Amino acid sequence: MILTVTLNPALDMTWHVDALTPGATHRAPTGSSRAGGKGVNVARVLHAQGHEVLALSTVGGANGAEFETELRASGIPHRLIRVSAATRRSLAIVDDTRGETTVLNERGTALAPVQVATLAATAARLGHTARAVALSGSLPPGFGPEQLGALVAELVGAGTPVVVDTSGAGLLAAARAGATALKPNSEELAEVTGERDPLVGARQLLTLGAQLVMVTLGRDGLLVLDRMHAPLHAGLPRTLHGNPTGAGDAAVAAITAVLATGIRLGGDSAESARAREDLARRGTAWSASAVLMPHAGELSPEHAVLEAEVTVQPIEEDLS
Amino acid sequence: MILTVTLNPALDMTWHVDALTPGATHRAPTGSSRAGGKGVNVARVLHAQGHEVLALSTVGGANGAEFETELRASGIPHRLIRVSAATRRSLAIVDDTRGETTVLNERGTALAPVQVATLAATAARLGHTARAVALSGSLPPGFGPEQLGALVAELVGAGTPVVVDTSGAGLLAAARAGATALKPNSEELAEVTGERDPLVGARQLLTLGAQLVMVTLGRDGLLVLDRMHAPLHAGLPRTLHGNPTGAGDAAVAAITAVLATGIRLGGDSAESARAREDLARRGTAWSASAVLMPHAGELSPEHAVLEAEVTVQPIEEDLS
Repeated sequence: MILTVTLNPALDMTWHVDALTPGATHRAPTGSSRAGGKGVNVARVLHAQGHEVLALSTVGGANGAEFETELRASGIPHRLIRVSAATRRSLAIVDDTRGETTVLNERGTALAPVQVATLAATAARLGHTARAVALSGSLPPGFGPEQLGALVAELVGAGTPVVVDTSGAGLLAAARAGATALKPNSEELAEVTGERDPLVGARQLLTLGAQLVMVTLGRDGLLVLDRMHAPLHAGLPRTLHGNPTGAGDAAVAAITAVLATGIRLGGDSAESARAREDLARRGTAWSASAVLMPHAGELSPEHAVLEAEVTVQPIEEDLS
Repeated sequence: MILTVTLNPALDMTWHVDALTPGATHRAPTGSSRAGGKGVNVARVLHAQGHEVLALSTVGGANGAEFETELRASGIPHRLIRVSAATRRSLAIVDDTRGETTVLNERGTALAPVQVATLAATAARLGHTARAVALSGSLPPGFGPEQLGALVAELVGAGTPVVVDTSGAGLLAAARAGATALKPNSEELAEVTGERDPLVGARQLLTLGAQLVMVTLGRDGLLVLDRMHAPLHAGLPRTLHGNPTGAGDAAVAAITAVLATGIRLGGDSAESARAREDLARRGTAWSASAVLMPHAGELSPEHAVLEAEVTVQPIEEDLS
């Protein structure tokens, strides 16, 4: 079983308008609401690809009830911890004329300390029986970077591979805790390292303790770095247009699926080298095929075709 | 008791952002959700002003549950008819930098014919015992203008004053049914009559059968017309800035409160003339004081002061 942990879930609402004009009144068809948050999106992708998955999250309030109803209907196995703070909402307003999406994310309400402890203990307990764990998304108020770091260290110490996709202080804490893999995008990486060059920034996270870093670069593909080998760059020869929300989650799903096979990505064997290449290829193809879909957590059926189109190249660095 | 009928209710959500930028991702503090729809706003205003009120509406789905919870907490007496269609949502995105509000209204799902019949029958039954009825807002899919007209005609025929605030074909149907008062804004009036001059447009509604028409003109105040007397223009000597959502509902509340006293507004007596002036004055002051408040359905405590500032003037028309 692959465990996905969504510390800061959201009820994801999507509304379509003809054209979004600030200050104007718009009529919109009935919108859709789905259980969301990055970890839930990762679970959706893995579940749809046939992986045995368990989505752990919190729920609270009326939004939480709607979150739970939708998650149950989706068929994704889940474990929900009831909290007093209402589940926050996230709204995607899709401008059907410009093909542009405007996103509003509620910050959410702080978790009570006892609920933070329950959430961390449940994640640790379930993680010990998992083949791999994905910890995705922002930290809710009340759940600090030090608590994230402790959870990552406990799981990695017990031998469970852990992929972390978060930003800010949580990303640094996960690196220091020795996360098996980190998946920042280039902006998140630049923000925490102060480096515009993603290769330099990713090396900082490896130096802090991360075992592998995948940096997603939007239309420019992605980078895969570990401590011992030349970085890999993967990309598609053509640009796909669509909804970028959820592309990073698809990349996390790809890393987690590869790690769940038990392969050690940082090794020197031919098998390890092939696994790193496979990871770069699949991460790129899954990200790209997520862009083609209207909702986060879905892959276009073209992902297998796209995987064959991906080019993976080692980057020869000038180390002089 | 004053009955307000909200045929097409909405769960009104308000989110604040620093600055709304189409295409960007925004973080927002936890938003608020309230029971909404124009008739509910009218009921809020009347309830806060000490009038005995009953808010009739429909509820359905998860949004409907949230609508009901908030309405119950607000203390406004209400009667809710459970329907299978989910209550729609309306979102106001407030740009705190520009002080500008962007509104997204869901269209809503069609009511089943049996639920339309129950809603109309309940409105008629409760309306017969009311001192006045306000029918406010758009018509939900499934509830046609002819059904609105039949309801208005039945209530007016039974001697209950009926104020209607709607647009399009429903506005025309209410005029033909002999509504005691109509409250279009100048855009709604121009849309159904094809006349840019609100005096000319309002006279068309009177000719169709409406007994009185109040046209709200935004910052330019409002007009009050009946069939027998010179039109009145009311306005404030200064412009108030704020949130215009709910200003029209405050005007409807003012008309309904005056009609509930039992006065006949179209009469030739000095008392009727004074009542028409009072109506113009109060409608202007309540609308203006609604603009000063963050949410629809609220009046700023300044409304009494503003009422003294309102100027009311008959318009001498050139009838040659």
